[in-house]
Amino acid sequence: MKTTVPLAPQTSTLIPRGVADYFWEEALQRRRLEVALLDIFRTWGYEDVIPPMFEYTNTFSRHANNELQAEMVRFQDRDGSTLALRADMTIAVARLVGTRLHDWPMPQRFCYTGSVFRDTELQAGRQREFLQAGIELIGAPSPTADAEILALTAKALQMAGLNGFKLVLGQMGYFHGLLQALQLTPDQQRWLQQAIDRNSEPEVAGFLRAVALESQQRRAIEELPSLNGHDVAAILAHAEQLCLNQVMQAALSNLRAICTALDSYGLLNFIYVDLTEIHNLGYYTGLTFEALAPGLGFPVATGGRYDQMIGAFGKPEAAVGAAFILDRMLTARRNSTGPQKPPQPVAPQLLVAATTSSQCLAIVEEWRGQGIRVAVDVGNHTVSELWQMAQKIGCQR
Amino acid sequence: MKTTVPLAPQTSTLIPRGVADYFWEEALQRRRLEVALLDIFRTWGYEDVIPPMFEYTNTFSRHANNELQAEMVRFQDRDGSTLALRADMTIAVARLVGTRLHDWPMPQRFCYTGSVFRDTELQAGRQREFLQAGIELIGAPSPTADAEILALTAKALQMAGLNGFKLVLGQMGYFHGLLQALQLTPDQQRWLQQAIDRNSEPEVAGFLRAVALESQQRRAIEELPSLNGHDVAAILAHAEQLCLNQVMQAALSNLRAICTALDSYGLLNFIYVDLTEIHNLGYYTGLTFEALAPGLGFPVATGGRYDQMIGAFGKPEAAVGAAFILDRMLTARRNSTGPQKPPQPVAPQLLVAATTSSQCLAIVEEWRGQGIRVAVDVGNHTVSELWQMAQKIGCQR
Repeated sequence: MKTTVPLAPQTSTLIPRGVADYFWEEALQRRRLEVALLDIFRTWGYEDVIPPMFEYTNTFSRHANNELQAEMVRFQDRDGSTLALRADMTIAVARLVGTRLHDWPMPQRFCYTGSVFRDTELQAGRQREFLQAGIELIGAPSPTADAEILALTAKALQMAGLNGFKLVLGQMGYFHGLLQALQLTPDQQRWLQQAIDRNSEPEVAGFLRAVALESQQRRAIEELPSLNGHDVAAILAHAEQLCLNQVMQAALSNLRAICTALDSYGLLNFIYVDLTEIHNLGYYTGLTFEALAPGLGFPVATGGRYDQMIGAFGKPEAAVGAAFILDRMLTARRNSTGPQKPPQPVAPQLLVAATTSSQCLAIVEEWRGQGIRVAVDVGNHTVSELWQMAQKIGCQR
Repeated sequence: MKTTVPLAPQTSTLIPRGVADYFWEEALQRRRLEVALLDIFRTWGYEDVIPPMFEYTNTFSRHANNELQAEMVRFQDRDGSTLALRADMTIAVARLVGTRLHDWPMPQRFCYTGSVFRDTELQAGRQREFLQAGIELIGAPSPTADAEILALTAKALQMAGLNGFKLVLGQMGYFHGLLQALQLTPDQQRWLQQAIDRNSEPEVAGFLRAVALESQQRRAIEELPSLNGHDVAAILAHAEQLCLNQVMQAALSNLRAICTALDSYGLLNFIYVDLTEIHNLGYYTGLTFEALAPGLGFPVATGGRYDQMIGAFGKPEAAVGAAFILDRMLTARRNSTGPQKPPQPVAPQLLVAATTSSQCLAIVEEWRGQGIRVAVDVGNHTVSELWQMAQKIGCQR
């Protein structure tokens, strides 16, 4: 068989940069994962939602951080308004609930899959269109709600065959409380945020040299970078000693309650606490998390609590959610199952000679009804030609 | 329960015109139909393909008629090139096969579902984003291939519960042959095309008064509007008498062969032949068809043969395909099952009290494994509060 077509990576000069064609086994795996995820989400009481593929740019931009704002794929509508391809599913669902479903009983649970668009710099082969699945639990402020989102995230990753994952938990309130206690200038805030975000000891040391602080405040900053690890109880105890106000304390109580609930789900072994984890899309207010799979540089899922967003569209409601990046999940699974085969068509299980007999077609139809993939010849080939063809495409016949 | 939110139609001033939010039962029905269609397509040997959501405008425009060209949703890429949201799935698949898969054995079968975008004038509530599913059979020029596409279309419509449909078949070659025989000026061609397309007797009569033709030619045009009906044999026999050249004859032989093959599938009762059916996306070269459901003004599926398109991207290959418009299919099914209920959430089948017992959670997990939709309370409600809540959301508990 001639295979002169370069088949991987599945991009081409005939399609724009940052988008891809998926076909054969690779496309099937994506579809199957979408369906399997939605099936699990539904058994947990989550309901399907399908937001539009583009919306007003403002809908997204007022909840996005600078990075997300810069990465939106924008275009002009005929009436002059500025539109953007769906840049974030959580914002779209919040807009729907805030404007149209706020009078229905809470909590409301939603699940989705679909393309999301970000015009990144395309480093490391990042795509501008990528497939997400996700869950949103709206109208429930309790730590049990956060734990449910984490437990369902874990369940989904296990179902997808990613058993070595870990869930890295942060709590935005701890760092927000610290900033409140320090009363810094906006420039100083950005400096500290960046130093912590990069987890850079020299930058933190530089900050402490430059800014005058009380000794308790210095200590809270100095020891913050060490507040991460698997031993949840020890890290929370250490963090407790560094609290400068109620906000920081409340964040820790919340994280402790979430971990207690996760223990009931038998998930403590998957948990890694990281109070320096403050980098995210800009709308999280409490719990934040990333799911990491072994050998993959990017999280396969991210999420957190966003209690301020729905109120911007209508009546305020607490909310927590998670989003899965399907291509990363599939890559992580492939990594864990050894070397990859070159792409090739998914062969039908049976290839049947051309027939105009309705009896034959009825039998074929019965096979298909049993879920067997049957291709009928449409080229009037002889039986020996068909036999050759079946071997060529790898059909079991 | 308060239901002050206006819930239908599912558009809002907060999203752009011509797109919609789908949620609850309506979103679930769309997802289920997508999955059911793909499942059927796969048992017939069709393989998944997922083209990008946007491509270079040129990819679509060189195969589109004026209408499709005018309706593309265009935007500028950062590098200055002009992009368009996916305006047609068939063109995207042809581009993929023509440029990257032409060296693999033929025939190749592909199936897909996904959003397609057309910036229409929005009469009659038409959407700018709509969900399509479809099939493409590439590298098979035989009438058996056309018949397979028609039979699979019928199978898919039956599966979706649309039993009263009919398949209206046309053949572009018959009209193209007529145009060749008449040797008209381009203006005259457009005039005749428009008169036939609108099925307007006065316009056809006006054309015949204005243009000098031989009597055989006059008769072929005069009687063309009557070449439609359920009696395939009679219509093809009548059409045969009007043939002016080999091209028209070949079109009829092809249509006859397709109908013979459809007879083997037991589908002749669903067939309506219409040789005046010449309105389509601009790329069909032979068979064309529309699937009509009772009481719906628009076709639920359309398709045809496009033997010239793949060659424009690479090595020429014959091809035939069909596309389904999912929202129309769902509307047709709802029309046939009586009056519609107002939208409401899909209630979970069980609502379970908040629990931190891992034994309880294990039982819940077992239920979910059986496919039961179970929501666990995340609000620490009392049993009687939960009971009220369950009744409010229509949960079976």
